[in-house]
Amino acid sequence: MREVGVSLFGFGNVGRAVARVLIEKEKLFRERYGVSLKVVSVADTTGVVWLPEGIDLREALLIKETFGKLSSWTNDYEVYNFTPEEAVKEVDADIVIDVTNDKNAHEWHLTALREGKAVVTSNKPPLAFHYAELMSEAEKRNVPYLFEATVMAGTPVIGLLRENLLGDTVERIEAVLNATTTFILSRMEMGLDFEEALKKAQSLGIAERDPSEDILGIDAGYKATILHCVAFEPKTFDEARVKGIAEVTAGGVGRARKKGRTIRLVATVERGSITVEPREIPVDSPLAVESHENAAVIWTDLLGELVIKGAGAGLKETASGVVSDIVKAALRTA
Amino acid sequence: MREVGVSLFGFGNVGRAVARVLIEKEKLFRERYGVSLKVVSVADTTGVVWLPEGIDLREALLIKETFGKLSSWTNDYEVYNFTPEEAVKEVDADIVIDVTNDKNAHEWHLTALREGKAVVTSNKPPLAFHYAELMSEAEKRNVPYLFEATVMAGTPVIGLLRENLLGDTVERIEAVLNATTTFILSRMEMGLDFEEALKKAQSLGIAERDPSEDILGIDAGYKATILHCVAFEPKTFDEARVKGIAEVTAGGVGRARKKGRTIRLVATVERGSITVEPREIPVDSPLAVESHENAAVIWTDLLGELVIKGAGAGLKETASGVVSDIVKAALRTA
Repeated sequence: MREVGVSLFGFGNVGRAVARVLIEKEKLFRERYGVSLKVVSVADTTGVVWLPEGIDLREALLIKETFGKLSSWTNDYEVYNFTPEEAVKEVDADIVIDVTNDKNAHEWHLTALREGKAVVTSNKPPLAFHYAELMSEAEKRNVPYLFEATVMAGTPVIGLLRENLLGDTVERIEAVLNATTTFILSRMEMGLDFEEALKKAQSLGIAERDPSEDILGIDAGYKATILHCVAFEPKTFDEARVKGIAEVTAGGVGRARKKGRTIRLVATVERGSITVEPREIPVDSPLAVESHENAAVIWTDLLGELVIKGAGAGLKETASGVVSDIVKAALRTA
Repeated sequence: MREVGVSLFGFGNVGRAVARVLIEKEKLFRERYGVSLKVVSVADTTGVVWLPEGIDLREALLIKETFGKLSSWTNDYEVYNFTPEEAVKEVDADIVIDVTNDKNAHEWHLTALREGKAVVTSNKPPLAFHYAELMSEAEKRNVPYLFEATVMAGTPVIGLLRENLLGDTVERIEAVLNATTTFILSRMEMGLDFEEALKKAQSLGIAERDPSEDILGIDAGYKATILHCVAFEPKTFDEARVKGIAEVTAGGVGRARKKGRTIRLVATVERGSITVEPREIPVDSPLAVESHENAAVIWTDLLGELVIKGAGAGLKETASGVVSDIVKAALRTA
């Protein structure tokens, strides 16, 4: 049995979903992969809990859910006031997991890679702005840098593009990558106007209180940029042409519907070009997704048209991608 | 630049399609992967052409297409009368590629693995009957055994199941895995009866002169068995319950159509159970494929429903899977 040390950054909804999967599947991973994952640190914005012998994740969840913050946990554990940068340096671990929203996380990702630690992330801005630098560091150190959950949650579009189709040349990708806008557009098809649909999404917790990242297409733009980096070559979000759904009207949605079409926020990625914009698509297109489903259509020279479709949001669904990458990293850091 | 020696068995339609991709993409693979693929032997049923310095694939294609057999090629090359077993032992290569229809190929696959050679195959019976033995040998020798093209041609359903979703537990797979039966059923929806549709498929070269493997569901059964092995645990084709489309009538197809449904040959794979049979499915189901498209719907505990859909037949499309595996094997046999 190989023991692999894991350092978890971020203990919000996604971080806790990851922790729950690690608890539930501990035995399974030992049996299936011969790997024992030992979480040596857990961090939220209030502090870093660190125990080289391994943290009891059940207790960590209990503390976080009872008190709302890890820094309340002073009974059996030391809580440190490290920045992520400091924690990455101090804590001895094989894999660093970033499930935060830290927009500057690329800095401590780079530090982790330089220290020979694998990085698994669901955090998009580091990739959307610093892909070339991160990948070059990872390759130089021969350390895994994995980010399945950044695009389409656990639906393995990144694995598909990075590790399969190795003889194909990708020509074009079209994808629906943001579930919040799909929800709002679906509700508009049912007769709500944009503001009503947005409020509905917010009341259900599907849209955030400040919904601008989703509505303005920024989230989809980050993801489309990452797809471009993987399928073609490094590019940054600044080079993407992004238009959100704020200008879509109930009238526009209705007119599309009468033509047997539906409006979705579609990302189009070709070599050198990243576009996100609301587009009318036929209702029988693979891109005419509903609910929290995402879809990508990939065209390549040999295979032709390939569709991958699955959950693009959700806690378990995002944890699926993060945990798959953790196992992948554990198997590679033998 | 790393040089990787390749031994190609099978020079029919698929083997030649693979050779064409290797010729076209030689420069690309050097640049993209730092790998130079050197084909040191090519075999058809008439003989083995072997040259340790590397064979000119353009010439091999010319000879085969001019004379119909490699044994005519006595000008610049030695042609040997090896069996595949002998050739695997004699020819020094890093990767053995099987694109034959040899039903007993598992024997020389095992020999190759024992000699530390990676195996890439599009040939289904070795996997459908000897999966456990082959995988155990490959794991023991720590040598890649890759078979993407055995199921859904180059559409990477095998890579998706073997190398992704590592934290998920697969619960069920439903898939349409045979394009010939889809063609026949589609034609029956247009009004032909079974015999007419079959003749049409044969005249277009979609069905073989002896179409029984497709019609009786054997081909789909092989593929479903392989999916079971990868997603759950080893099983053999003998344990699959397989029913083909020979009993589907024009009347049955028409009645389904009136209910907004279509008949397809559907494989259902759950732990311990492999079934292939014609089933009525809604026309808006992801399984309601047309033409040479295949589709698989995969349900897992974390991710929920995942759809992968793409070419399931065709020469370039099958070569896509074989060549992707060749590159993968080359990268792993560093």
